Amino acid sequence: MNLGICQMKVVNKKEENIKKAENMIRKLAEEGSETIILPEMFNCPYDNSRFQEYAETQDGPTITRLKEVAKELKVHIIAGSIPEKTGEGIYNTSFIINPEGDIIGRHRKIHLFNINIPGKITFRESDTLLAGENPTIIKVGNVKIGVGICYDIRFPELSRIMTLKGASILAFPGAFNMVTGPAHWKTLIRARAIDNQVFVVAASPARDKKAEYVAYGHSMVADPWGSIIYEAGADETIKNVEIDLSQVENVRRRLPLLENRRPEIYDEHPH
Amino acid sequence: MNLGICQMKVVNKKEENIKKAENMIRKLAEEGSETIILPEMFNCPYDNSRFQEYAETQDGPTITRLKEVAKELKVHIIAGSIPEKTGEGIYNTSFIINPEGDIIGRHRKIHLFNINIPGKITFRESDTLLAGENPTIIKVGNVKIGVGICYDIRFPELSRIMTLKGASILAFPGAFNMVTGPAHWKTLIRARAIDNQVFVVAASPARDKKAEYVAYGHSMVADPWGSIIYEAGADETIKNVEIDLSQVENVRRRLPLLENRRPEIYDEHPH
Repeated sequence: MNLGICQMKVVNKKEENIKKAENMIRKLAEEGSETIILPEMFNCPYDNSRFQEYAETQDGPTITRLKEVAKELKVHIIAGSIPEKTGEGIYNTSFIINPEGDIIGRHRKIHLFNINIPGKITFRESDTLLAGENPTIIKVGNVKIGVGICYDIRFPELSRIMTLKGASILAFPGAFNMVTGPAHWKTLIRARAIDNQVFVVAASPARDKKAEYVAYGHSMVADPWGSIIYEAGADETIKNVEIDLSQVENVRRRLPLLENRRPEIYDEHPH
Repeated sequence: MNLGICQMKVVNKKEENIKKAENMIRKLAEEGSETIILPEMFNCPYDNSRFQEYAETQDGPTITRLKEVAKELKVHIIAGSIPEKTGEGIYNTSFIINPEGDIIGRHRKIHLFNINIPGKITFRESDTLLAGENPTIIKVGNVKIGVGICYDIRFPELSRIMTLKGASILAFPGAFNMVTGPAHWKTLIRARAIDNQVFVVAASPARDKKAEYVAYGHSMVADPWGSIIYEAGADETIKNVEIDLSQVENVRRRLPLLENRRPEIYDEHPH
Protein backbone atom coordinates (compact mmCIF):
# COMPACT_ATOMS: atom_id res chain seq x y z
CA MET A 1 0.00 0.00 0.00
CA ASN A 2 1.20 3.50 -0.80
CA LEU A 3 0.63 6.13 1.87
CA GLY A 4 0.98 9.78 0.99
CA ILE A 5 1.89 12.26 3.71
CA CYS A 6 1.28 15.99 3.41
CA GLN A 7 3.41 18.01 5.80
CA MET A 8 1.87 21.33 4.82
CA LYS A 9 2.44 24.79 6.17
CA VAL A 10 -0.87 26.11 7.43
CA VAL A 11 -1.55 29.81 6.90
CA ASN A 12 -4.14 32.34 8.02
CA LYS A 13 -6.29 32.00 4.90
CA LYS A 14 -8.58 29.03 4.66
CA GLU A 15 -8.79 29.16 0.87
CA GLU A 16 -5.02 29.00 0.56
CA ASN A 17 -4.88 26.03 2.90
CA ILE A 18 -7.48 24.14 0.89
CA LYS A 19 -5.62 24.92 -2.33
CA LYS A 20 -2.32 23.80 -0.80
CA ALA A 21 -3.83 20.55 0.42
CA GLU A 22 -5.32 19.92 -3.00
CA ASN A 23 -2.01 20.53 -4.75
CA MET A 24 -0.14 18.22 -2.42
CA ILE A 25 -2.74 15.49 -2.82
CA ARG A 26 -2.55 15.89 -6.58
CA LYS A 27 1.24 15.46 -6.61
CA LEU A 28 1.12 12.48 -4.28
CA ALA A 29 -1.54 10.79 -6.39
CA GLU A 30 0.77 11.21 -9.39
CA GLU A 31 3.51 9.50 -7.38
CA GLY A 32 1.21 6.57 -6.72
CA SER A 33 -0.19 7.33 -3.26
CA GLU A 34 -3.46 5.50 -2.66
CA THR A 35 -4.28 6.81 0.81
CA ILE A 36 -3.27 10.36 1.57
CA ILE A 37 -3.13 11.90 5.01
CA LEU A 38 -3.26 15.59 5.87
CA PRO A 39 -2.15 17.12 9.19
CA GLU A 40 -4.24 18.18 12.16
CA MET A 41 -6.04 21.52 11.59
CA PHE A 42 -4.81 21.76 8.01
CA ASN A 43 -7.35 24.40 7.03
CA CYS A 44 -7.04 26.57 10.14
CA PRO A 45 -4.25 27.92 12.35
CA TYR A 46 -3.98 25.83 15.50
CA ASP A 47 -5.18 28.59 17.78
CA ASN A 48 -8.19 28.63 20.09
CA SER A 49 -9.13 32.11 18.93
CA ARG A 50 -9.51 30.93 15.31
CA PHE A 51 -11.50 27.71 15.57
CA GLN A 52 -14.88 29.45 15.66
CA GLU A 53 -14.15 31.54 12.58
CA TYR A 54 -12.75 28.64 10.53
CA ALA A 55 -15.25 26.01 11.63
CA GLU A 56 -17.53 24.45 9.05
CA THR A 57 -19.69 21.38 8.60
CA GLN A 58 -18.89 18.42 6.38
CA ASP A 59 -20.86 20.26 3.70
CA GLY A 60 -18.59 23.30 3.94
CA PRO A 61 -15.99 24.31 1.33
CA THR A 62 -13.08 22.27 2.76
CA ILE A 63 -14.58 18.81 2.76
CA THR A 64 -16.65 19.47 -0.34
CA ARG A 65 -13.47 20.28 -2.25
CA LEU A 66 -11.63 17.23 -0.90
CA LYS A 67 -14.52 14.97 -1.89
CA GLU A 68 -14.22 16.25 -5.44
CA VAL A 69 -10.45 15.76 -5.40
CA ALA A 70 -10.68 12.23 -3.98
CA LYS A 71 -13.19 11.28 -6.66
CA GLU A 72 -11.20 12.82 -9.46
CA LEU A 73 -7.90 11.23 -8.41
CA LYS A 74 -9.39 7.96 -7.14
CA VAL A 75 -7.66 8.12 -3.76
CA HIS A 76 -8.62 7.80 -0.14
CA ILE A 77 -8.07 10.96 1.87
CA ILE A 78 -7.67 11.02 5.63
CA ALA A 79 -8.42 14.70 5.89
CA GLY A 80 -6.19 15.53 8.84
CA SER A 81 -8.57 17.57 10.90
CA ILE A 82 -10.65 20.71 10.71
CA PRO A 83 -12.74 22.56 13.27
CA GLU A 84 -16.13 20.96 12.69
CA LYS A 85 -19.17 23.11 13.35
CA THR A 86 -22.18 21.37 14.89
CA GLY A 87 -25.28 22.34 16.83
CA GLU A 88 -23.56 21.51 20.12
CA GLY A 89 -20.29 23.27 19.39
CA ILE A 90 -17.00 22.68 17.61
CA TYR A 91 -15.13 19.38 17.35
CA ASN A 92 -11.58 18.72 16.15
CA THR A 93 -12.59 16.31 13.42
CA SER A 94 -10.98 14.12 10.79
CA PHE A 95 -13.20 13.24 7.85
CA ILE A 96 -12.15 10.25 5.80
CA ILE A 97 -13.14 10.19 2.14
CA ASN A 98 -13.07 7.29 -0.33
CA PRO A 99 -12.28 7.32 -4.06
CA GLU A 100 -15.98 7.64 -4.82
CA GLY A 101 -15.93 10.95 -2.98
CA ASP A 102 -18.01 9.64 -0.08
CA ILE A 103 -17.28 10.25 3.57
CA ILE A 104 -16.59 6.82 5.09
CA GLY A 105 -15.44 7.87 8.52
CA ARG A 106 -15.42 10.77 10.93
CA HIS A 107 -13.11 10.89 13.91
CA ARG A 108 -13.76 13.52 16.50
CA LYS A 109 -10.69 13.94 18.72
CA ILE A 110 -11.46 12.03 21.89
CA HIS A 111 -8.78 13.43 24.17
CA LEU A 112 -8.65 17.22 24.34
CA PHE A 113 -5.19 18.68 24.72
CA ASN A 114 -4.50 20.57 27.91
CA ILE A 115 -1.01 21.73 28.74
CA ASN A 116 0.37 24.41 31.02
CA ILE A 117 4.14 24.77 31.17
CA PRO A 118 4.66 28.35 32.39
CA GLY A 119 6.97 30.34 30.13
CA LYS A 120 7.00 27.60 27.50
CA ILE A 121 3.57 26.59 26.33
CA THR A 122 -0.02 26.87 27.47
CA PHE A 123 -2.98 25.55 25.52
CA ARG A 124 -6.43 24.35 26.54
CA GLU A 125 -8.47 22.81 23.76
CA SER A 126 -11.29 22.19 26.19
CA ASP A 127 -11.87 25.97 26.34
CA THR A 128 -13.20 25.94 22.79
CA LEU A 129 -13.68 22.37 21.59
CA LEU A 130 -15.92 19.44 22.40
CA ALA A 131 -14.55 15.92 22.76
CA GLY A 132 -15.51 12.98 20.56
CA GLU A 133 -16.88 9.79 22.03
CA ASN A 134 -15.85 7.01 19.65
CA PRO A 135 -12.78 5.23 18.31
CA THR A 136 -12.72 5.38 14.51
CA ILE A 137 -11.71 2.65 12.13
CA ILE A 138 -12.11 2.76 8.38
CA LYS A 139 -11.60 0.13 5.72
CA VAL A 140 -9.45 0.67 2.65
CA GLY A 141 -9.99 -2.48 0.64
CA ASN A 142 -9.35 -5.23 3.17
CA VAL A 143 -7.13 -3.08 5.36
CA LYS A 144 -8.43 -1.51 8.53
CA ILE A 145 -6.97 1.85 9.47
CA GLY A 146 -7.53 3.36 12.91
CA VAL A 147 -7.62 7.14 13.02
CA GLY A 148 -6.75 9.25 16.05
CA ILE A 149 -5.82 12.92 16.32
CA CYS A 150 -2.65 14.19 17.98
CA TYR A 151 -3.20 14.04 21.78
CA ASP A 152 -5.15 10.81 21.20
CA ILE A 153 -1.77 9.13 20.57
CA ARG A 154 -0.76 9.72 24.19
CA PHE A 155 -3.37 7.30 25.47
CA PRO A 156 -2.25 3.71 24.87
CA GLU A 157 -5.80 2.52 25.52
CA LEU A 158 -7.10 4.02 22.27
CA SER A 159 -4.37 2.53 20.07
CA ARG A 160 -4.97 -0.83 21.72
CA ILE A 161 -8.71 -0.65 21.13
CA MET A 162 -8.17 0.16 17.45
CA THR A 163 -5.67 -2.71 17.16
CA LEU A 164 -8.00 -5.21 18.82
CA LYS A 165 -10.70 -4.13 16.39
CA GLY A 166 -8.39 -5.19 13.59
CA ALA A 167 -6.49 -2.09 12.53
CA SER A 168 -3.11 -2.82 10.98
CA ILE A 169 -2.36 0.86 10.40
CA LEU A 170 -2.89 3.66 12.90
CA ALA A 171 -3.01 7.14 11.39
CA PHE A 172 -2.49 10.20 13.56
CA PRO A 173 -2.76 13.66 12.10
CA GLY A 174 -1.05 15.62 14.85
CA ALA A 175 0.54 18.93 15.71
CA PHE A 176 2.97 18.42 18.54
CA ASN A 177 4.84 21.58 19.51
CA MET A 178 8.45 22.59 20.12
CA VAL A 179 8.31 21.39 23.74
CA THR A 180 6.49 18.08 23.43
CA GLY A 181 7.68 17.30 19.89
CA PRO A 182 11.40 16.85 20.55
CA ALA A 183 10.64 15.19 23.89
CA HIS A 184 7.90 12.70 22.99
CA TRP A 185 6.71 12.57 19.37
CA LYS A 186 8.99 9.87 17.97
CA THR A 187 8.96 7.75 21.10
CA LEU A 188 5.16 7.70 21.17
CA ILE A 189 4.90 6.82 17.48
CA ARG A 190 7.44 4.02 17.88
CA ALA A 191 5.88 2.72 21.10
CA ARG A 192 2.37 2.48 19.63
CA ALA A 193 3.87 0.55 16.71
CA ILE A 194 5.94 -1.76 18.95
CA ASP A 195 3.14 -2.49 21.41
CA ASN A 196 0.50 -3.12 18.79
CA GLN A 197 2.67 -4.44 15.97
CA VAL A 198 1.03 -2.12 13.47
CA PHE A 199 2.19 0.60 11.11
CA VAL A 200 1.86 4.06 12.61
CA VAL A 201 1.72 7.08 10.33
CA ALA A 202 1.76 10.56 11.82
CA ALA A 203 1.26 13.72 9.77
CA SER A 204 2.21 17.11 11.22
CA PRO A 205 1.91 20.60 9.79
CA ALA A 206 5.26 22.05 8.69
CA ARG A 207 7.00 24.19 11.27
CA ASP A 208 6.18 27.88 11.09
CA LYS A 209 8.24 29.84 13.58
CA LYS A 210 5.99 32.88 13.17
CA ALA A 211 2.81 31.01 14.08
CA GLU A 212 1.04 31.43 17.41
CA TYR A 213 1.49 27.69 17.99
CA VAL A 214 4.69 26.33 16.43
CA ALA A 215 4.26 22.77 15.15
CA TYR A 216 7.20 20.38 15.41
CA GLY A 217 6.92 18.87 11.93
CA HIS A 218 8.71 15.52 11.62
CA SER A 219 5.84 13.59 10.08
CA MET A 220 6.86 9.96 10.16
CA VAL A 221 6.00 6.32 9.63
CA ALA A 222 6.94 3.45 11.94
CA ASP A 223 6.70 -0.18 10.85
CA PRO A 224 5.26 -2.97 13.06
CA TRP A 225 8.72 -3.66 14.52
CA GLY A 226 8.89 0.00 15.59
CA SER A 227 11.53 1.05 13.07
CA ILE A 228 11.11 4.50 11.57
CA ILE A 229 10.87 4.00 7.82
CA TYR A 230 10.27 7.66 7.02
CA GLU A 231 10.85 10.88 8.90
CA ALA A 232 10.38 14.38 7.53
CA GLY A 233 12.29 17.41 8.71
CA ALA A 234 10.59 20.60 9.87
CA ASP A 235 9.82 22.13 6.46
CA GLU A 236 6.91 21.72 4.12
CA THR A 237 7.15 18.49 2.19
CA ILE A 238 5.20 15.61 0.70
CA LYS A 239 6.22 11.98 0.68
CA ASN A 240 4.87 8.75 -0.70
CA VAL A 241 5.77 5.84 1.58
CA GLU A 242 5.30 2.30 0.35
CA ILE A 243 4.44 -0.09 3.15
CA ASP A 244 4.39 -3.88 3.10
CA LEU A 245 1.39 -4.98 5.11
CA SER A 246 2.64 -8.57 5.33
CA GLN A 247 5.06 -7.26 7.96
CA VAL A 248 2.20 -7.03 10.45
CA GLU A 249 1.61 -10.76 10.27
CA ASN A 250 5.33 -11.53 10.19
CA VAL A 251 6.15 -9.56 13.30
CA ARG A 252 3.16 -10.98 15.17
CA ARG A 253 4.13 -14.55 14.31
CA ARG A 254 7.66 -14.05 15.59
CA LEU A 255 6.75 -12.19 18.76
CA PRO A 256 3.11 -13.02 19.56
CA LEU A 257 2.42 -10.03 21.79
CA LEU A 258 -1.29 -9.86 21.16
CA GLU A 259 -1.73 -13.57 21.94
CA ASN A 260 0.36 -13.17 25.09
CA ARG A 261 -1.88 -10.47 26.54
CA ARG A 262 -3.74 -11.30 29.77
CA PRO A 263 -7.08 -9.50 29.37
CA GLU A 264 -8.67 -11.52 32.19
CA ILE A 265 -6.19 -9.86 34.55
CA TYR A 266 -6.58 -6.37 33.08
CA ASP A 267 -10.33 -6.67 33.49
CA GLU A 268 -10.03 -7.23 37.22
CA HIS A 269 -8.57 -3.79 37.82
CA PRO A 270 -10.05 -0.33 37.36
CA HIS A 271 -9.09 1.36 34.11
CA MET B 1 15.01 8.72 46.95
CA ASN B 2 18.18 6.84 46.05
CA LEU B 3 17.76 3.85 43.75
CA GLY B 4 20.59 1.38 43.41
CA ILE B 5 20.89 -0.65 40.22
CA CYS B 6 22.88 -3.87 39.99
CA GLN B 7 23.78 -4.77 36.42
CA MET B 8 25.45 -8.04 37.35
CA LYS B 9 26.93 -10.75 35.20
CA VAL B 10 25.12 -13.97 35.95
CA VAL B 11 27.21 -17.17 35.94
CA ASN B 12 26.55 -20.89 36.08
CA LYS B 13 27.04 -21.15 39.84
CA LYS B 14 24.22 -20.10 42.07
CA GLU B 15 26.46 -19.45 45.07
CA GLU B 16 28.63 -17.08 43.06
CA ASN B 17 25.58 -15.21 41.85
CA ILE B 18 24.27 -14.76 45.38
CA LYS B 19 27.69 -13.59 46.55
CA LYS B 20 27.96 -11.15 43.64
CA ALA B 21 24.50 -9.73 44.34
CA GLU B 22 25.37 -9.32 48.01
CA ASN B 23 28.61 -7.49 47.21
CA MET B 24 26.91 -5.14 44.80
CA ILE B 25 24.14 -4.40 47.29
CA ARG B 26 26.74 -3.73 49.96
CA LYS B 27 28.58 -1.21 47.79
CA LEU B 28 25.39 0.53 46.75
CA ALA B 29 24.23 0.79 50.35
CA GLU B 30 27.55 2.48 51.15
CA GLU B 31 26.87 4.94 48.34
CA GLY B 32 23.51 5.77 49.86
CA SER B 33 21.09 3.60 47.90
CA GLU B 34 17.88 3.01 49.82
CA THR B 35 16.08 0.73 47.38
CA ILE B 36 18.24 -1.65 45.39
CA ILE B 37 17.13 -3.55 42.33
CA LEU B 38 18.67 -6.72 40.92
CA PRO B 39 18.17 -8.04 37.38
CA GLU B 40 15.84 -10.76 36.14
CA MET B 41 17.11 -14.28 36.91
CA PHE B 42 20.08 -12.96 38.85
CA ASN B 43 20.79 -16.27 40.56
CA CYS B 44 20.36 -18.49 37.51
CA PRO B 45 21.34 -18.44 33.82
CA TYR B 46 18.38 -17.36 31.72
CA ASP B 47 17.94 -20.74 30.09
CA ASN B 48 14.90 -23.02 30.12
CA SER B 49 17.11 -26.05 30.81
CA ARG B 50 18.39 -24.51 34.07
CA PHE B 51 15.28 -23.19 35.79
CA GLN B 52 14.35 -26.53 37.37
CA GLU B 53 17.82 -27.06 38.83
CA TYR B 54 18.15 -23.50 40.20
CA ALA B 55 14.58 -23.13 41.44
CA GLU B 56 13.99 -22.63 45.14
CA THR B 57 11.29 -21.36 47.48
CA GLN B 58 11.36 -18.09 49.37
CA ASP B 59 12.95 -20.04 52.19
CA GLY B 60 15.82 -21.21 49.99
CA PRO B 61 19.39 -19.89 50.14
CA THR B 62 18.96 -16.94 47.76
CA ILE B 63 16.13 -15.08 49.43
CA THR B 64 17.26 -16.09 52.92
CA ARG B 65 20.62 -14.48 52.28
CA LEU B 66 19.08 -11.32 50.82
CA LYS B 67 16.76 -10.98 53.82
CA GLU B 68 19.83 -11.00 56.08
CA VAL B 69 21.59 -8.47 53.87
CA ALA B 70 18.57 -6.14 53.71
CA LYS B 71 18.25 -6.22 57.50
CA GLU B 72 21.95 -5.66 58.09
CA LEU B 73 22.19 -2.76 55.64
CA LYS B 74 18.73 -1.33 56.30
CA VAL B 75 17.75 -1.23 52.63
CA HIS B 76 14.85 -2.33 50.50
CA ILE B 77 15.75 -4.96 47.93
CA ILE B 78 13.74 -5.63 44.79
CA ALA B 79 15.29 -9.00 44.23
CA GLY B 80 15.23 -9.04 40.44
CA SER B 81 13.85 -12.47 39.86
CA ILE B 82 14.61 -16.11 40.55
CA PRO B 83 13.00 -19.33 39.42
CA GLU B 84 10.55 -19.90 42.29
CA LYS B 85 9.72 -23.50 43.14
CA THR B 86 6.13 -24.21 44.16
CA GLY B 87 3.83 -27.21 44.35
CA GLU B 88 2.31 -26.32 40.96
CA GLY B 89 5.55 -25.63 39.15
CA ILE B 90 8.09 -22.86 38.65
CA TYR B 91 7.40 -19.14 38.45
CA ASN B 92 9.68 -16.30 37.37
CA THR B 93 9.38 -14.37 40.63
CA SER B 94 10.59 -11.13 42.15
CA PHE B 95 10.62 -11.06 45.95
CA ILE B 96 10.72 -7.63 47.54
CA ILE B 97 12.33 -7.34 50.96
CA ASN B 98 12.20 -4.46 53.44
CA PRO B 99 14.90 -3.19 55.84
CA GLU B 100 13.51 -5.41 58.58
CA GLY B 101 14.35 -8.40 56.41
CA ASP B 102 10.70 -9.20 55.73
CA ILE B 103 9.23 -10.09 52.36
CA ILE B 104 6.73 -7.34 51.55
CA GLY B 105 5.91 -8.29 47.99
CA ARG B 106 6.13 -11.10 45.49
CA HIS B 107 5.67 -10.52 41.77
CA ARG B 108 5.26 -13.55 39.59
CA LYS B 109 5.86 -12.60 35.95
CA ILE B 110 2.42 -12.26 34.41
CA HIS B 111 3.34 -12.34 30.74
CA LEU B 112 5.49 -15.27 29.68
CA PHE B 113 8.02 -14.50 26.97
CA ASN B 114 7.58 -16.32 23.70
CA ILE B 115 9.65 -15.41 20.70
CA ASN B 116 10.59 -17.22 17.50
CA ILE B 117 12.79 -15.39 15.04
CA PRO B 118 14.40 -18.16 13.01
CA GLY B 119 18.19 -17.88 12.90
CA LYS B 120 18.21 -15.11 15.49
CA ILE B 121 16.42 -16.03 18.69
CA THR B 122 13.93 -18.57 19.92
CA PHE B 123 12.72 -18.81 23.51
CA ARG B 124 9.51 -20.08 25.06
CA GLU B 125 9.17 -19.44 28.77
CA SER B 126 5.80 -21.13 28.74
CA ASP B 127 7.58 -24.45 28.14
CA THR B 128 8.95 -24.41 31.68
CA LEU B 129 7.35 -21.60 33.66
CA LEU B 130 3.93 -20.76 35.05
CA ALA B 131 2.44 -17.28 34.74
CA GLY B 132 1.54 -15.05 37.67
CA GLU B 133 -1.94 -13.67 38.08
CA ASN B 134 -1.55 -10.35 39.90
CA PRO B 135 -0.06 -6.90 39.48
CA THR B 136 2.34 -6.11 42.31
CA ILE B 137 2.76 -2.84 44.13
CA ILE B 138 4.87 -2.31 47.23
CA LYS B 139 5.24 0.64 49.53
CA VAL B 140 8.59 2.16 50.46
CA GLY B 141 7.69 4.76 53.04
CA ASN B 142 4.93 6.73 51.33
CA VAL B 143 6.08 5.82 47.83
CA LYS B 144 4.35 3.13 45.84
CA ILE B 145 6.52 1.11 43.48
CA GLY B 146 5.02 -1.16 40.85
CA VAL B 147 7.08 -4.22 39.98
CA GLY B 148 6.96 -6.05 36.66
CA ILE B 149 9.40 -8.46 35.07
CA CYS B 150 10.89 -8.00 31.59
CA TYR B 151 8.21 -9.05 29.06
CA ASP B 152 5.63 -7.50 31.41
CA ILE B 153 6.90 -4.09 30.22
CA ARG B 154 5.60 -4.80 26.71
CA PHE B 155 1.99 -4.68 27.84
CA PRO B 156 0.91 -1.09 28.44
CA GLU B 157 -2.13 -2.34 30.35
CA LEU B 158 -0.01 -3.54 33.28
CA SER B 159 1.96 -0.30 33.65
CA ARG B 160 -1.30 1.62 33.50
CA ILE B 161 -2.91 -0.55 36.18
CA MET B 162 0.07 -0.04 38.48
CA THR B 163 -0.04 3.71 37.84
CA LEU B 164 -3.75 3.96 38.53
CA LYS B 165 -3.15 2.09 41.79
CA GLY B 166 -0.80 4.90 42.76
CA ALA B 167 2.67 3.79 41.73
CA SER B 168 5.05 6.68 41.05
CA ILE B 169 7.94 4.34 40.21
CA LEU B 170 7.75 1.27 37.98
CA ALA B 171 10.61 -1.20 38.45
CA PHE B 172 11.35 -3.77 35.78
CA PRO B 173 14.07 -6.33 36.30
CA GLY B 174 14.50 -7.50 32.72
CA ALA B 175 16.75 -9.38 30.36
CA PHE B 176 16.10 -8.21 26.84
CA ASN B 177 18.36 -9.83 24.25
CA MET B 178 20.56 -8.69 21.39
CA VAL B 179 17.61 -8.63 18.96
CA THR B 180 14.88 -7.01 21.06
CA GLY B 181 17.23 -4.93 23.21
CA PRO B 182 18.62 -2.58 20.56
CA ALA B 183 15.22 -2.45 18.83
CA HIS B 184 12.83 -1.88 21.73
CA TRP B 185 14.27 -1.65 25.26
CA LYS B 186 14.83 2.10 25.55
CA THR B 187 11.68 3.06 23.65
CA LEU B 188 9.52 0.89 25.90
CA ILE B 189 11.10 2.26 29.07
CA ARG B 190 10.64 5.83 27.87
CA ALA B 191 7.10 5.22 26.64
CA ARG B 192 5.92 3.72 29.94
CA ALA B 193 7.38 6.76 31.70
CA ILE B 194 5.84 9.26 29.24
CA ASP B 195 2.39 7.67 29.22
CA ASN B 196 2.14 7.24 32.96
CA GLN B 197 4.30 10.16 34.09
CA VAL B 198 6.24 7.95 36.48
CA PHE B 199 9.86 7.01 36.97
CA VAL B 200 10.77 3.76 35.26
CA VAL B 201 13.82 1.83 36.42
CA ALA B 202 14.95 -1.23 34.46
CA ALA B 203 17.74 -3.54 35.64
CA SER B 204 19.34 -5.97 33.19
CA PRO B 205 22.05 -8.56 33.67
CA ALA B 206 25.38 -7.53 32.17
CA ARG B 207 26.04 -8.79 28.66
CA ASP B 208 27.83 -12.13 28.48
CA LYS B 209 28.58 -13.03 24.90
CA LYS B 210 29.33 -16.63 25.88
CA ALA B 211 25.97 -17.21 27.53
CA GLU B 212 23.23 -19.29 25.94
CA TYR B 213 20.97 -16.22 26.08
CA VAL B 214 22.88 -12.96 25.64
CA ALA B 215 21.36 -10.12 27.68
CA TYR B 216 21.45 -6.61 26.23
CA GLY B 217 22.52 -4.81 29.41
CA HIS B 218 21.75 -1.07 29.31
CA SER B 219 19.99 -0.86 32.65
CA MET B 220 18.41 2.56 32.79
CA VAL B 221 16.16 5.05 34.53
CA ALA B 222 13.62 7.33 32.84
CA ASP B 223 12.06 10.28 34.63
CA PRO B 224 8.33 11.16 34.43
CA TRP B 225 8.95 13.35 31.37
CA GLY B 226 10.51 10.34 29.65
CA SER B 227 14.08 11.61 29.74
CA ILE B 228 16.75 8.98 30.37
CA ILE B 229 18.59 10.08 33.51
CA TYR B 230 20.85 7.04 33.65
CA GLU B 231 21.89 4.43 31.13
CA ALA B 232 24.48 1.72 31.70
CA GLY B 233 26.56 0.18 28.95
CA ALA B 234 26.78 -3.57 28.37
CA ASP B 235 29.27 -4.45 31.11
CA GLU B 236 28.86 -5.29 34.75
CA THR B 237 28.28 -2.18 36.81
CA ILE B 238 26.45 -0.71 39.77
CA LYS B 239 24.93 2.73 39.98
CA ASN B 240 23.15 4.82 42.57
CA VAL B 241 20.60 7.11 40.93
CA GLU B 242 19.03 9.89 42.95
CA ILE B 243 15.50 10.64 41.87
CA ASP B 244 13.31 13.59 42.79
CA LEU B 245 9.81 12.28 43.30
CA SER B 246 8.29 15.76 43.18
CA GLN B 247 8.81 15.54 39.42
CA VAL B 248 5.88 13.15 39.18
CA GLU B 249 3.50 15.78 40.52
CA ASN B 250 5.17 18.55 38.51
CA VAL B 251 4.87 16.78 35.19
CA ARG B 252 1.27 15.75 35.87
CA ARG B 253 0.28 19.30 36.75
CA ARG B 254 1.74 20.67 33.54
CA LEU B 255 0.39 17.97 31.25
CA PRO B 256 -2.58 16.34 33.01
CA LEU B 257 -2.58 13.08 31.05
CA LEU B 258 -4.14 10.97 33.74
CA GLU B 259 -6.97 13.44 34.24
CA ASN B 260 -7.51 13.64 30.48
CA ARG B 261 -8.05 9.88 30.10
CA ARG B 262 -11.51 8.74 28.93
CA PRO B 263 -12.06 5.50 30.85
CA GLU B 264 -15.79 5.54 30.11
CA ILE B 265 -14.90 5.14 26.44
CA TYR B 266 -12.22 2.50 27.02
CA ASP B 267 -14.70 0.47 29.02
CA GLU B 268 -17.12 0.27 26.13
CA HIS B 269 -14.70 -1.75 24.03
CA PRO B 270 -13.23 -5.20 24.51
CA HIS B 271 -9.75 -5.24 26.04
